[in-house]
Amino acid sequence: MIEVATAFGLETENREIKDIANDVADILIDDLSRAMPGEYLTIKHMAPEERQKVWAGLDILPISAYNEAFDTYHRTCVGTDGDWFSNMRAFLRCGLAFTFTGVVAADIATDILYGEGEIRNCRVNVGALEKNYVNIAVHGHLPMLVSKVVELGNSEEYQQKAREIGAKGVNFYGICCSGLAAMYRYENVIPLSNAVGAELVLGTGAFDLWCADIQDVYPAIMDVAKCTQTVVVTTSDAARLPGSEHYAYDRFHSNMGDTEKIARKIMDRALQAHWERRGLPVFIPPYEVKGKVGFNPYNVGQTFGYDKIAKALEYGQIRGVVNIVGCSNPRVVFEKPTYEIALEMLKNDIVILTNGCASFPLLKMGLCDPDSVMEKCGPGLQAFFKETDMPPVWHVGECVDNAKSSGIFGAITGQFGRALKDMPFAMSSPEWSNEEGVCASLGFRLHGINSYHCVEPPVQGFKKVTDFLKKDSTEYLGSVMYVHTDGKTVAAKIIEDINAKRRALGWKI
Amino acid sequence: MIEVATAFGLETENREIKDIANDVADILIDDLSRAMPGEYLTIKHMAPEERQKVWAGLDILPISAYNEAFDTYHRTCVGTDGDWFSNMRAFLRCGLAFTFTGVVAADIATDILYGEGEIRNCRVNVGALEKNYVNIAVHGHLPMLVSKVVELGNSEEYQQKAREIGAKGVNFYGICCSGLAAMYRYENVIPLSNAVGAELVLGTGAFDLWCADIQDVYPAIMDVAKCTQTVVVTTSDAARLPGSEHYAYDRFHSNMGDTEKIARKIMDRALQAHWERRGLPVFIPPYEVKGKVGFNPYNVGQTFGYDKIAKALEYGQIRGVVNIVGCSNPRVVFEKPTYEIALEMLKNDIVILTNGCASFPLLKMGLCDPDSVMEKCGPGLQAFFKETDMPPVWHVGECVDNAKSSGIFGAITGQFGRALKDMPFAMSSPEWSNEEGVCASLGFRLHGINSYHCVEPPVQGFKKVTDFLKKDSTEYLGSVMYVHTDGKTVAAKIIEDINAKRRALGWKI
Repeated sequence: MIEVATAFGLETENREIKDIANDVADILIDDLSRAMPGEYLTIKHMAPEERQKVWAGLDILPISAYNEAFDTYHRTCVGTDGDWFSNMRAFLRCGLAFTFTGVVAADIATDILYGEGEIRNCRVNVGALEKNYVNIAVHGHLPMLVSKVVELGNSEEYQQKAREIGAKGVNFYGICCSGLAAMYRYENVIPLSNAVGAELVLGTGAFDLWCADIQDVYPAIMDVAKCTQTVVVTTSDAARLPGSEHYAYDRFHSNMGDTEKIARKIMDRALQAHWERRGLPVFIPPYEVKGKVGFNPYNVGQTFGYDKIAKALEYGQIRGVVNIVGCSNPRVVFEKPTYEIALEMLKNDIVILTNGCASFPLLKMGLCDPDSVMEKCGPGLQAFFKETDMPPVWHVGECVDNAKSSGIFGAITGQFGRALKDMPFAMSSPEWSNEEGVCASLGFRLHGINSYHCVEPPVQGFKKVTDFLKKDSTEYLGSVMYVHTDGKTVAAKIIEDINAKRRALGWKI
Repeated sequence: MIEVATAFGLETENREIKDIANDVADILIDDLSRAMPGEYLTIKHMAPEERQKVWAGLDILPISAYNEAFDTYHRTCVGTDGDWFSNMRAFLRCGLAFTFTGVVAADIATDILYGEGEIRNCRVNVGALEKNYVNIAVHGHLPMLVSKVVELGNSEEYQQKAREIGAKGVNFYGICCSGLAAMYRYENVIPLSNAVGAELVLGTGAFDLWCADIQDVYPAIMDVAKCTQTVVVTTSDAARLPGSEHYAYDRFHSNMGDTEKIARKIMDRALQAHWERRGLPVFIPPYEVKGKVGFNPYNVGQTFGYDKIAKALEYGQIRGVVNIVGCSNPRVVFEKPTYEIALEMLKNDIVILTNGCASFPLLKMGLCDPDSVMEKCGPGLQAFFKETDMPPVWHVGECVDNAKSSGIFGAITGQFGRALKDMPFAMSSPEWSNEEGVCASLGFRLHGINSYHCVEPPVQGFKKVTDFLKKDSTEYLGSVMYVHTDGKTVAAKIIEDINAKRRALGWKI
């Protein structure tokens, strides 16, 4: 946190940590909600200077996240903004607000409150489910209650309580992002499935309680939970599900102090559900692999050395770095394009950063496991990673951990003193579907990194907008969005563009 | 303003007016943008106590307008709020935020800065256009630049400049809301047309310059303006039109101090356009009427006396009061249902409040003119208004002046010490179409006043939501939305419901 406070220009010496934290929080909240025109401080203090000039030149520096959302909504009202480019500017402003408040600020605050975590070894996939345990899924994106629930569940107190009702203990399984973040912070939260696969794993009948918070919790889980008699608990006022039980903070967060009380209620409910569910059928397919989760800008530097990464990149042992992220999308074969692109990257010596829903196929196919992934890699990666016990797929965690991917991109770029847009980097969310997925790719493009996808976004209505996003944004941002429905074609395009960047840098191809 | 400051519980004695104004502004801005949970002060200090209890009971008190818009948007993200009633509550919260910040606060601030205006006599309809004048349209909803442009245009300086280029002077015409508000504040801004009729009046060829700000400015005016060689000027960063000229405040309002400079640029451009447009064809249909505009809670009390209004209402001389407002909608015959409903109201001794787009047919058909409207009224209204020179249609101005309609409703209700929901009041936006129209009707329903419409809103996808809005909200709010595509059927329903309220009050029907 001192690092963040220093970046914000706050006094840190001889001050109580709580006071510094309050000042940091004030800046983040001000950037969230500022109504009077002013500077977006997270951008001012944390974005690359080259980018800040680009954004100011385009007049897309946001005032605050609330303000831009409100203003953009206003512009779309009947008979208001009739100029497509003006609308695109509003779109880009929202992209910056999302990136620096929705992602960077969320990541800063979460890391300060719950720790940065570390690289963890974990069991992965549905075979890691175990009968005769109190099995709890954590599903969503908010760490507040999940942290306490996992802490309690792993405590001797609750393990003992579980044994008292005939279970072997308490197990946690991660669905979507909550699980991934809990894993690298607390261990013992097995990454099981992304959001689209939630109903499948729930259908095993292995779950006693399903603890859901916000985003990517499809209402259809309720139908499956009814069949398996799993208790679904919702924990956010903003995300209710008819038929679920609700143990949550209220809308005003007035019961924040009751975190442990609420978490105990959830744990006790899980025990009760386990007791009530004795004898119900459970089917666990026998597929289990292992993997590593929890890379971040700090431990990547510690583990590999950014100077060595930079040299390997320059000399071509590592051809480039691609961030493979984003949601799943029922419009493509589940997880296929993501896996296809990942394989092509590895074969072509491109290091992969990953997080969120897109990371599950990579985890499940063993790409995060150093013992099984190396044979799928090109000679460059094989050489670079042979003396480590690390995979060339760096799993940074949940989707707000795109901030960690950006940090890694930034740290590598820093070794060359260049702009991000000149580097052999790429961002790909092959199966993007939801709002934050759209914004995440925009966030990288705003930073000058191309984004690559296998599903057409709904921007075909107006040629100028389509052209802007797919071609003309190069002129303004130094980046474009590339879309092709075939995964291998997308992979080839990423490699072609990375090679072009390398060529421009005078680096070996 | 002292009245508002007092309502807000601010100290007003022995203080500079500027300091009091700053405190009022701080409260309004805080209600706009508050990020940390807290009380919505405009609601706390201005809403009826009975309603505040209803809203608290439903857990729909908003935190701030920014916060509710942001939160509601969040709830609609993929896999977030899966509970229809939770979504309805968010909808109602947005309705309160819209009402108290979008309407009440906007009205407070506008009246403080530009004055409350007064009841004015005006010429109305397209026959009021005059050849050989520098003709300027003001179109939209923001008073800041319009006020200065109208002031300059009416000044001897610019009237003289107009004469120097061979014109007889400068005339202003109001399109949509900007014109109505400018009329009751400054006079000499002739109400000409609502937004949907803008292209028709522009097609006369009479306009030299068209000054547009925000909302309900359809891009199609550009095509017409090209034919008539009218210069279109946009004045808000949030509302651009390709092909227009842009003289405006920037996005940060850093050039607020240049208001006069910008307004002069617009006026000079109008003179130049008039000069350049000499000899172009102009066709002005000969239809002109007169009317009164500018009623507000204060002058209604002064003119009629709320005690007298209350007595007339109780004894049945006035059967009820209906607020007829809202946009036009191309899905119905232009202005037909609005006029039909208004006629039925008058015939049945129901006083009409009106503003915005829906008020134009009433103005154009002479219903705001005491000399021509009375013959269309029932015996009760004829008796009540016979000793006044006022019409039974009280035109309060532009759409944020719904706050003035609410003020009039409140003042009448205050005479009886009852709740709004028990009174023989109604709100009708027959042709509603745009977002603020939807919110305005919701605002009245939140206050316990039914809303009546001739176009189905897009809420048919889910029966529970449709039922909630059309029937079940009675239980929660004491009000419902009634929709029927036939104007006369809607009118009959309003009268039936007003009679039912009267019956419940034990008043003569």
